[in-house]
Amino acid sequence: MLNPHLIEFPKMGNPEIGYISVVEQNTLVPFEVKRLFWTYYTPESIVRGRHAHHKTEQVLIAVAGRITVTTELSDGTIQIFRLENPNVGLYVPPHAWHTMQYSHAAVQLVLASDVYNEDDYIRSYTDFKEIWQSK
Amino acid sequence: MLNPHLIEFPKMGNPEIGYISVVEQNTLVPFEVKRLFWTYYTPESIVRGRHAHHKTEQVLIAVAGRITVTTELSDGTIQIFRLENPNVGLYVPPHAWHTMQYSHAAVQLVLASDVYNEDDYIRSYTDFKEIWQSK
Repeated sequence: MLNPHLIEFPKMGNPEIGYISVVEQNTLVPFEVKRLFWTYYTPESIVRGRHAHHKTEQVLIAVAGRITVTTELSDGTIQIFRLENPNVGLYVPPHAWHTMQYSHAAVQLVLASDVYNEDDYIRSYTDFKEIWQSK
Repeated sequence: MLNPHLIEFPKMGNPEIGYISVVEQNTLVPFEVKRLFWTYYTPESIVRGRHAHHKTEQVLIAVAGRITVTTELSDGTIQIFRLENPNVGLYVPPHAWHTMQYSHAAVQLVLASDVYNEDDYIRSYTDFKEIWQSK
């Protein structure tokens, strides 16, 4: 079972022409991308996330601005990741309770291993602890 | 054969909490996404693109900033699209010669129907006209 970790995507280009980063199936992302979403115009005062999953794996990328992601595992391990490079992603496994806080104008791109299914979300912290401690 | 057209993705949220837009397979994007890339820090003086494809279809989204996309078909039809909403994408078919110009801080997200293959690019305008006029 993979734990939260940063993924460095290729960054091709230079300051004179700009940069491009690429994801193709079966390369740096350890799952098949079934859903893609992006979040934007999130006020700095808002904390998003606050859930874990049963199965869904995700990669979060700050394609613009800065995102501070806090992950917590059921054994109490807490990590804080500051995403601020458009070529760096954070792998978030299903068993990580996670919260995100966004800088003004941040755009978060998320690659997910499954289509949306509310049943896959664990939105109670107590449930999260119980479910993932027992595995 | 589909021509260039705008796609409006769902935009969920409100100003107090921010917004999210989503792509799942087989919904608004008329192909299976095999490659995903994003471009950033492109100087305003740079024009990107200047090619067509044999097969690859794409959807371009300005998830941050503004992108001006010019498409030209082999019959001479020219269209100019101004992308400036993170929930609006532009479908670019293989038979559209296209160029893009970016605002300062624009981030372009591209969904593509095929993995990267240089042989699929038509980088000569003359070849583009010949190849696509004959189809």
